[in-house]
Amino acid sequence: MKRRRWFFVKAASVLLLAAPLAADEKAAPKPPLTMGSVLEASRASDWMPLDQANTLYMQLPGKQVVIRLVPEFAPQHVANIKTLVQEGYFDGLVIVRSQENYVVQWGDPAEEEADRRPMKKGKDALPAEFDQVVSDHLSLIRHPDGDVYADVVGFVNSFPVAMDSDTGRIWLTHCYSMMGAGRAESPDSGSGAELYVVIGHSPRHLDRNVTLAGRVVQGMEILTTLPRGTGGLGFYEDPKQYVPIESIRLGSDLPESEQAHLEILRTDTKTFHDLVESRRNRHESWFADPTGHISLCNVPIPVREKD
Amino acid sequence: MKRRRWFFVKAASVLLLAAPLAADEKAAPKPPLTMGSVLEASRASDWMPLDQANTLYMQLPGKQVVIRLVPEFAPQHVANIKTLVQEGYFDGLVIVRSQENYVVQWGDPAEEEADRRPMKKGKDALPAEFDQVVSDHLSLIRHPDGDVYADVVGFVNSFPVAMDSDTGRIWLTHCYSMMGAGRAESPDSGSGAELYVVIGHSPRHLDRNVTLAGRVVQGMEILTTLPRGTGGLGFYEDPKQYVPIESIRLGSDLPESEQAHLEILRTDTKTFHDLVESRRNRHESWFADPTGHISLCNVPIPVREKD
Repeated sequence: MKRRRWFFVKAASVLLLAAPLAADEKAAPKPPLTMGSVLEASRASDWMPLDQANTLYMQLPGKQVVIRLVPEFAPQHVANIKTLVQEGYFDGLVIVRSQENYVVQWGDPAEEEADRRPMKKGKDALPAEFDQVVSDHLSLIRHPDGDVYADVVGFVNSFPVAMDSDTGRIWLTHCYSMMGAGRAESPDSGSGAELYVVIGHSPRHLDRNVTLAGRVVQGMEILTTLPRGTGGLGFYEDPKQYVPIESIRLGSDLPESEQAHLEILRTDTKTFHDLVESRRNRHESWFADPTGHISLCNVPIPVREKD
Repeated sequence: MKRRRWFFVKAASVLLLAAPLAADEKAAPKPPLTMGSVLEASRASDWMPLDQANTLYMQLPGKQVVIRLVPEFAPQHVANIKTLVQEGYFDGLVIVRSQENYVVQWGDPAEEEADRRPMKKGKDALPAEFDQVVSDHLSLIRHPDGDVYADVVGFVNSFPVAMDSDTGRIWLTHCYSMMGAGRAESPDSGSGAELYVVIGHSPRHLDRNVTLAGRVVQGMEILTTLPRGTGGLGFYEDPKQYVPIESIRLGSDLPESEQAHLEILRTDTKTFHDLVESRRNRHESWFADPTGHISLCNVPIPVREKD
């Protein structure tokens, strides 16, 4: 919605446009934060490299999607996905579904048929991993602006989460680009053999209804621009429309030269705190109203190429 | 995230899965609402036809996008867009921008150049129409689940809105598929000659920063699947990537045979109220957790072909 001639943010006197300042801030005004200035000031230790043992590389014709797995929240699903990947289960399967403002999904189109692809060591069904009791190893960075769906939201290890403070249960949230494991009617029927990625406005009603297992960190635009399926729920009606998956590989099984050298901004850092503030209160001169709030799924988790 | 074999929702004993019921509801349980059952029970008067005098038809090669304008909130921008449409301003212009998880935008790629397309009666800049004082002609249907960005949210004439109850000011919100008028640095620099549509997670920080003027009601999948631009902010770097706009026409200037005969669910109806309830508490048997809430931009505004 910027017109092209205001392509780059001007370093104008943006404080004039900012929200009213508190008295002490007036006394000693700080330079306003923008996402650009915050990231520019970040230190190497604010970033973490991809853990290649928990990174998937999905090869589509001429294109690659990189996915960060999240064993902290879905240990059994992540382990099973890795087992399936290592036995080559996904290689030659297809993207079966692309539903407008919702999800893209892949797996075995014959999964209900007698000739479905057999698994070797992989399991066909797993207990639901919808949520868990919060524990010390999950260091929650609370988000300040509340949420429509949960009483606490925030970030754990650079993933968006929600928590019920009454029960102490915590779960991953269905923000844009999160990846989950499709399931049938029973909550315990998912396995990770059929996976979906959120491509529209975040469908938070799926939280705690299906197991989330990761997030796309590179290549979202490949999934979002796939033609939509014309069948119910966006399934492709004609097998000719399926998008072939050449392979899915685990990063730690690839030579280093074929790994993506990406870094994720750590959410347990002052830099991330400043980033959130810079997005809550927009100081870029284009903004007439700095907003003053941001919802969980609008907070960007920056990813960069490692130097 | 449904596996294919659970394609259709089963009519199981879904009350068992629903949220705890109030005592009086236990005494006389109502059949659970689903979006399907609510729409099936709707009456003709729950729907309104497109107002062809405020409907745009954007022709792309072999495809058509239908946009509902909203003069109640942006009278000057809507009037100017209609003037520009009627003088053929957009015909032969292009889609210049497709930014992942954000917006698609169209207009004159030469707008900063000496050879930019001249306007005849259309105006090049208009006063901002970011918000207005709520008045009797805007009948607000309040949404029950709160919001991160505003203290009141809801619907007016089947558009999503937010309101500040202290000031009584009301505005359209940047939900998925909403269309706005790009502007330069000055809030009063937009005109409707450059238009954008939200294609990602709803960027609510743009609310009250830019004038919204309508919503795509048919053809979103055409815009969302356009290749992303590789330039800054998703602008196409190579003019060969531009998507040509064959024409934009106003419905009331078209013969009836070329108009889309669509109906929008009215938000000031019991049916819409029931629809929201059916989405706040998901009674389809697949849902393990009925959720109990829904955020403004997750509420669907159904559109159907007129019989």
